[in-house]
Amino acid sequence: MASGYDFCPRGITRRSLGLLFAGADMGSASVGGTPERPVVTVQLSDGALRALAARVGQSLPVGNEGAGTVVGAGSSSEAQGLLARTVAIAGGAMYTQYRAADASACLVLPEGTPARTGASSFVNPLTALGMLETMRREGHSALVHTAAASNLGQMLVKVCLEEDVPLVNIVRRPEQADLLRSIGAVHVCNSSASTFNTDLTEAIAQTSATLAFDATGGGTLVSQILRAMEVAATTSAAQYSRYGSTVRKQAYIYGGLDPGPTVLTRNFGFAWSLEGWLLTPFLQSIGPVRLGQLRDRVAANLTTTFASGYSDEISLKDMLDPTVFSRYSKHSTGEKFLLNPQLFD
Amino acid sequence: MASGYDFCPRGITRRSLGLLFAGADMGSASVGGTPERPVVTVQLSDGALRALAARVGQSLPVGNEGAGTVVGAGSSSEAQGLLARTVAIAGGAMYTQYRAADASACLVLPEGTPARTGASSFVNPLTALGMLETMRREGHSALVHTAAASNLGQMLVKVCLEEDVPLVNIVRRPEQADLLRSIGAVHVCNSSASTFNTDLTEAIAQTSATLAFDATGGGTLVSQILRAMEVAATTSAAQYSRYGSTVRKQAYIYGGLDPGPTVLTRNFGFAWSLEGWLLTPFLQSIGPVRLGQLRDRVAANLTTTFASGYSDEISLKDMLDPTVFSRYSKHSTGEKFLLNPQLFD
Repeated sequence: MASGYDFCPRGITRRSLGLLFAGADMGSASVGGTPERPVVTVQLSDGALRALAARVGQSLPVGNEGAGTVVGAGSSSEAQGLLARTVAIAGGAMYTQYRAADASACLVLPEGTPARTGASSFVNPLTALGMLETMRREGHSALVHTAAASNLGQMLVKVCLEEDVPLVNIVRRPEQADLLRSIGAVHVCNSSASTFNTDLTEAIAQTSATLAFDATGGGTLVSQILRAMEVAATTSAAQYSRYGSTVRKQAYIYGGLDPGPTVLTRNFGFAWSLEGWLLTPFLQSIGPVRLGQLRDRVAANLTTTFASGYSDEISLKDMLDPTVFSRYSKHSTGEKFLLNPQLFD
Repeated sequence: MASGYDFCPRGITRRSLGLLFAGADMGSASVGGTPERPVVTVQLSDGALRALAARVGQSLPVGNEGAGTVVGAGSSSEAQGLLARTVAIAGGAMYTQYRAADASACLVLPEGTPARTGASSFVNPLTALGMLETMRREGHSALVHTAAASNLGQMLVKVCLEEDVPLVNIVRRPEQADLLRSIGAVHVCNSSASTFNTDLTEAIAQTSATLAFDATGGGTLVSQILRAMEVAATTSAAQYSRYGSTVRKQAYIYGGLDPGPTVLTRNFGFAWSLEGWLLTPFLQSIGPVRLGQLRDRVAANLTTTFASGYSDEISLKDMLDPTVFSRYSKHSTGEKFLLNPQLFD
C-alpha cells in the first residue's frame, strides 16, 4: 500500500528540536563542512552525554509531521485515489523532500488545501482535542493549561469555546494574556504577576477545574496549580482534615519548556496525581474509530479552529545556518518556523 | 449499636503527631498550666499558621487506632457478643480512656490477645497489605519501598516473603539494612551509600519493579527511583526514543517524613505517574468484602507477620512532658511509643 509523496512544508516543533540538537546549547555551536553540506558541531556536557548514551552513533531521522502533494501511488484503489491530493501525515522522518507512507496513515485534506495549511495537522490539533478527551474520560469538567499562548494553546481556547468547556489559561506576559483574550479566552492568569496565586485560585474556584495540562515541566508551576485547586476545594469545606480535601486533583506534564526539575511543595493533601502525557500512546488508547473522528474534525477546520501561524519559512539548508538556528532554537512565542524542503535559495 | 469500650494502648504514629503538634518545632515548646493539667505552647511560623488557618480554634481529637477490652455493650446480640473480648478499632479520637464504637467497626482479636498486641492492628498492617493489593490491581509484579526499616516496612518484608513478591527495600543506614536482612529481605539499598543509584538500578532490574511506595515525600528519592526504573527498562531496549521507554512507572507518596519539596528531575521519559496514597480512600475503594478478608488476615497474624514492637509505654500525662515528647516527636527508627491511657504514675 505504500505510496510515494512529495512532502512539503512542516512546522519545526520543540519535539523535533530536542531530537535534532539533543538539548545542547546552540549558542556554542560551530559550523564546518562545505556550503553545500554544512556540518554543525556542538559540545554536550558529560551528564547530558551519559543521558544520551543510547543514541550515540545512531542516525536519527527528524520531523514529526508534514503535508504535501501525492506524486506517486501504489496500485491499490485506496492509494490511487490519493494521487494529486494534499495529504498530511505524522510518521516521523518528515524533514525530507519525498516521503513514502501508508495510504491509511494519510489525512486527506479538503480539495485545494495548500500543503502549508496542512503542515501541522496532527500534533497540535490532536493534542488540543486529546486534552478535552482526557478531561471527559476522567470525569473532569474544566481545564487548566500552561504556556497557553502557544499555537496549541490558541487552538485549545477555540475548541473549549466551541464546546463550552471552562478553561483557565496561564501565560507569562501581559501581551500573551491580551492575545488570548482577543480570541475569546475568559480566564487568563499571568504567572509573572504578584497576584498570580490569588488570581489562579479565583479562576479555578470559578471554573471548578481539577485537571491541568502543563507544557513547562520544570519549576513550581504544577505545584502552584495543585495548591490552587486544593485551596479552591477546601475553602468551602466545613471540617479541617490534615490529609487535605478528598477532591481528586490531576496534572499532566506533556512538555519540558523549562528543563529544570519539577518542584512539588505537597501542600495540596493526598488526593492528587501527576503524570507524564504523550500524544501517541493516548491516541492508541482511544482506538481507531474515535481517532478517525478526531482527524476528520481537524481536516474540516484547518483554516479556522486548527489554523497554525508561521513567522518564517526556511529551507533544509537554512536549518544549519547559525543565524537561522539561533532563532528557531529559542522557542519564542510568536516565532514559529515552517520547514519547506522544496525551497532552494 | 454503639457500645462502651475500655480502650487501652495505642501506638503513637507520625500521623497523630502531625495532628497533635501541627508540624511545629517541639524543641521550642514551653510547658505551663498545672502538674495535673499541663499546657504545652509552641510558636508556629507565619507560613505554617496560614496553611493551618482552617483548624485554628478547633478542638481536634487525636489518635488513629487502638485496642482494648469491651466493658459495656448495647443490647444487640452482635454488641453483646463482644463483652470482655479484646477488640481493635481505627476510628479516630483514640487518645482517650473510654471509647464508644460501632460493633461492626470492631476487629475482634483472638481470645486472650492483650490490648498491647492489638494496638496497631489497622494502619500499618492494612497499609502493607494495601500496597500489595494496589500492586496486583494495577498490574505490577514487584515493589520498591522507602523508609523500609519502619514497623510497616518490616511487615511488608514478611508479607512479600509469604507471597513471593520481589521487594526492593530502601533504607538510610547500614544497621537498618542489617535489620531487614535478618528478617529475610533480599534486596536492600542504602540511600546514603555512594553506589546507591547503581545498587537501586540493579535491584530494580533484577525484580522488574515498576511500582514504588514512598514514605519520605521530600527530596529527590522518588525521582531517583523513577530514573532507576527507566534505566532498567531502557538498558535492554534496542532503539533510542527521545520520549523514553513505554514501560509504565508508578510511584505513590504515602507519607511525609521529609517535609521539604519533592524534586523530580524528569529524566525518566513520559510513561510515569506520581500520586498521593492514603489508606482510608484505598480501603473504601476495595469494598467491604475484600476489606473483611484483609482484616481477618491481620487478626490471625498479629503476633507474627503483623507484630509491632514498642520501645516505650507512656501515659496521657507523659505525652505533655517535655522530656518525653522531645523523644517521641523525633520519629527515630527503633523508637516507637505506645500510649496507654489507663497508665497512671
